[in-house]
Amino acid sequence: MIDRDHCLALDAGDPLRAFRDEFVLPEGVVYLVGNSLGALPRGAAERVRRAVEDEWGGQLVGGWNHAGWYAQPLTAGDRLAPLIGAGPGQVVVGNTTSIAIYQAVAAALRLRPERRVIVSDVRNFPTDHYMVQGLAGLLGGYEIRDVSEGRFDDAAVVLLAEVDYRTGARHDVPAVTAQVQEAGALMVWDVCHSVGAMKVDVSGADFAVGCTYKYLNAGPGAPAFLYVNPRHHATAENVLSGWHGHAEPFAFEAGYRPAEGIRRFAIGTPHVLSFAALEAALDVWERVPMDQIRAKSMALTSLFVDLVGDALELVSPADAAARGSQVSLRHPDGYPVMRALIDRGVHGDFRAPDVLRFGFAPLYIRYTDVYDAAATLLEVLDRELWRDEKYARRLAVT
Amino acid sequence: MIDRDHCLALDAGDPLRAFRDEFVLPEGVVYLVGNSLGALPRGAAERVRRAVEDEWGGQLVGGWNHAGWYAQPLTAGDRLAPLIGAGPGQVVVGNTTSIAIYQAVAAALRLRPERRVIVSDVRNFPTDHYMVQGLAGLLGGYEIRDVSEGRFDDAAVVLLAEVDYRTGARHDVPAVTAQVQEAGALMVWDVCHSVGAMKVDVSGADFAVGCTYKYLNAGPGAPAFLYVNPRHHATAENVLSGWHGHAEPFAFEAGYRPAEGIRRFAIGTPHVLSFAALEAALDVWERVPMDQIRAKSMALTSLFVDLVGDALELVSPADAAARGSQVSLRHPDGYPVMRALIDRGVHGDFRAPDVLRFGFAPLYIRYTDVYDAAATLLEVLDRELWRDEKYARRLAVT
Repeated sequence: MIDRDHCLALDAGDPLRAFRDEFVLPEGVVYLVGNSLGALPRGAAERVRRAVEDEWGGQLVGGWNHAGWYAQPLTAGDRLAPLIGAGPGQVVVGNTTSIAIYQAVAAALRLRPERRVIVSDVRNFPTDHYMVQGLAGLLGGYEIRDVSEGRFDDAAVVLLAEVDYRTGARHDVPAVTAQVQEAGALMVWDVCHSVGAMKVDVSGADFAVGCTYKYLNAGPGAPAFLYVNPRHHATAENVLSGWHGHAEPFAFEAGYRPAEGIRRFAIGTPHVLSFAALEAALDVWERVPMDQIRAKSMALTSLFVDLVGDALELVSPADAAARGSQVSLRHPDGYPVMRALIDRGVHGDFRAPDVLRFGFAPLYIRYTDVYDAAATLLEVLDRELWRDEKYARRLAVT
Repeated sequence: MIDRDHCLALDAGDPLRAFRDEFVLPEGVVYLVGNSLGALPRGAAERVRRAVEDEWGGQLVGGWNHAGWYAQPLTAGDRLAPLIGAGPGQVVVGNTTSIAIYQAVAAALRLRPERRVIVSDVRNFPTDHYMVQGLAGLLGGYEIRDVSEGRFDDAAVVLLAEVDYRTGARHDVPAVTAQVQEAGALMVWDVCHSVGAMKVDVSGADFAVGCTYKYLNAGPGAPAFLYVNPRHHATAENVLSGWHGHAEPFAFEAGYRPAEGIRRFAIGTPHVLSFAALEAALDVWERVPMDQIRAKSMALTSLFVDLVGDALELVSPADAAARGSQVSLRHPDGYPVMRALIDRGVHGDFRAPDVLRFGFAPLYIRYTDVYDAAATLLEVLDRELWRDEKYARRLAVT
């Protein structure tokens, strides 16, 4: 029997416990939506203020050099690289995950011109598919095949998410990568739902994309990132060939000449203010022991699953090692159940038609938070509190 | 003979003079680079602070609905629309100019599938070309023709900048648009160097793109915008088909179904913190009489040209109505001349090989600023101050 005192003891012994104080978390809320939007790092407000007032206000256009704005896509990429098993000069930051997917998949198609199949996963987060559909529609002549068919031998590229956004199920990245590459296809990983929740290692893949606003806590709409394996740096093409990817952007040449290395995947002017918050988030990550992140992530999700027991159907894998840092549960009244939970200070989200998602960000979620969330969920269910008609209103949690 | 007292009188009578106080401008600097990066509006620091601390910190994921983040690309678009002669529901904000160019040109090609020529302008800002080159290279079979050939009858699309970034020369938008459309091609205007410096009207065009960080003063890397003429809303395709352009983004459907109206041109998650500064900039613009902007813009550039006289070759058109809000001058030692100017507090920029650019943002540049800039330039030239060897160092103004 697990009680709250046991969880208090777990918190006291948590090697990551000091990190919670580095985040702003509202009073009386158990925030289990860090897998959607991470909490505000305390350093972000000052870092963004500095970008606005000291850099933009004080340096004006000089900030492009003196404040390092111009270099941000690469400097942030180098800082982020260790979180995905990459090295310096392999990651460029900017734009959105959608754009990075387009760049990666299009580059892969150009590297495999003789193949006309794109393998995607119908269960993946929709924007991944949508971008592939837009690209395939523009090019014509491509088949988009679902990964469930399991056939890669004629595929140019395979695009998969390491962790499924809905179920939390986790792919075996090295094994899938090897299988795809042995079939002669290129592998693109979307690590949006794994980066910052576990040790990610995409170094064997051809490309990887991800966002920084979930477990990385870089703020709403923070820039995305794109990893390109060094073996493709000389040959991969950035079809979104903006001036920041040019060999000499300030030579203002008429013809596009790609930069050497990862910088050829930069596109337009970086969103400087959004980068500032990312820098504050990375200030935290540089001090985080990633082994501890994964250990705590598995402990938190396992604790929640144990506490909830069989009150709800578990959508996520039962084995902690096979899931990300989230637990998804199924309930036919999932929407009003979540509404009732949120009213009681436990914030998760709902994914139609019947899935309740709970994300456990190991940097700032405590074992007692897990206990309180599970206890509240059981209370809502036991007392049928969600049947209150006020919870029938449409919930708009993103 | 124009003296400084005359300029003081002009400032005293300037109907826009109060706007200068709404911007943060460094002491002792005449900032003539607002055509590259606009100055910081005083309201931006507080608006961005609110986005970080109150919205992100206080509302967390709830900010997508409660703080209006989700709607930002359209709400900002509606606020910006009057500045380019557009109406509500015709402009979407986000991403970068480079991305917006790709969307507009690709959509135009899809609307003219039987034509295989893209007309561009080799003198245009390079990213416009580069994006076209990337798109044409991906598709294959397209000719990129320079506008100087003057032939549009087999063109799918014509992409031009209203104001040339280097010379300041201004196109006659209605006349060129009519000529292009009569030839059966679609017209895409890039208004980066005109929006906020004059009354822009792209309502006759098919598409228009622009940035918000120059004369609009929305900050470094502020989001770009895309105008789509309503006659194309039902048929134009967004080839960068991200989830925010889907008819029901939160239905998480497997297949892309474009939203009705301009929202189909949204792509990924908006860069919320960068949008916050844009909102503060638009708070200013909503009170600006645009007729006065153009009148003052022409008066400022004419004053500068008159004061400089024939000391330097004028690259910009001599007729104020035929240029934007900048004056470009040629000097064989342009680089060290600009360096000497900056050392004396007059900030312009240099474009290789020999062009000095001076941008006059009518919202915050005074007639006395123009006088002081011209006087300093003449002093630098008369006394050959730029020959000081310290100015031979590489200048890195962007």
